[in-house]
Amino acid sequence: MDIVVRDALKNDMQAVHALITELAVFEKEPNAVKVSISDLERDGFGKDPKFHCFVAEVGKKIVGIALVYARYSTWQGPVIHLEDLIVTATMRGKGVGSVLLKEVVRYGMSKGVRRISWEVLDWNEPAIQFYEQRGAKVLRDWDVVQLDEEGMKKFLGE
Amino acid sequence: MDIVVRDALKNDMQAVHALITELAVFEKEPNAVKVSISDLERDGFGKDPKFHCFVAEVGKKIVGIALVYARYSTWQGPVIHLEDLIVTATMRGKGVGSVLLKEVVRYGMSKGVRRISWEVLDWNEPAIQFYEQRGAKVLRDWDVVQLDEEGMKKFLGE
Repeated sequence: MDIVVRDALKNDMQAVHALITELAVFEKEPNAVKVSISDLERDGFGKDPKFHCFVAEVGKKIVGIALVYARYSTWQGPVIHLEDLIVTATMRGKGVGSVLLKEVVRYGMSKGVRRISWEVLDWNEPAIQFYEQRGAKVLRDWDVVQLDEEGMKKFLGE
Repeated sequence: MDIVVRDALKNDMQAVHALITELAVFEKEPNAVKVSISDLERDGFGKDPKFHCFVAEVGKKIVGIALVYARYSTWQGPVIHLEDLIVTATMRGKGVGSVLLKEVVRYGMSKGVRRISWEVLDWNEPAIQFYEQRGAKVLRDWDVVQLDEEGMKKFLGE
């Protein structure tokens, strides 16, 4: 099976959005995707892109994506964050995720960063195994914290 | 006690670096800080700053910092990440962290983001309590994953 990984183009965002939505359903949050196709087009392909996206194609069809952006560690300096690594359900276990992750690591090396980070659900054992087999460390003592829009307003007393 | 929060200046980076190092010691990783004072000066105050830093002063002395930058959520769009919220040990429990966090939330509102995120050690109960009291959600099922420089090289077979 031939897997081709390339930088995403603006008009790939419809397929990218479909994969983002597929992952949200898998993560039991079907209504969580507030971002639209045109948001992705604007935010990823403007003068100051907010992310960089790779797509994986098999037979000219987009079957996976990796979406990354820069973060800043006060210990390590500039680092890369992998926001989403998604392979469509019917194409899992065929090496697509591995090829995408390799491309992300290559991208990180080209930027000279000392680390690539991401987040994983602790019940997603296949994903955890996949990452650990490739040398990543799952920091089980670090949790993600979020303050959402409602919480922000409440905190400011509005 | 008068707490003044303001944007950090380039020549605050020595004090900021001292607080970053103090936190690393608290988190049991005293040798983890690879970033230098001049790295912070270059990365935070160039043409394209990689972070925004707030400092909290009491009696003209910097006693706390909050360091933030933009991230991109494929569900929420542009979001703000709080990389570090640090108050020097002798000044904890006096409201400094709360004033700093409020400034970060105000900053997020001004940027129109739907979420502010950060990370916390799951054994740091005072911090978790502090965040939860202010409306933040600790997502205990989401873990942080990291691939470090050595892991990156190994993955690419170098």
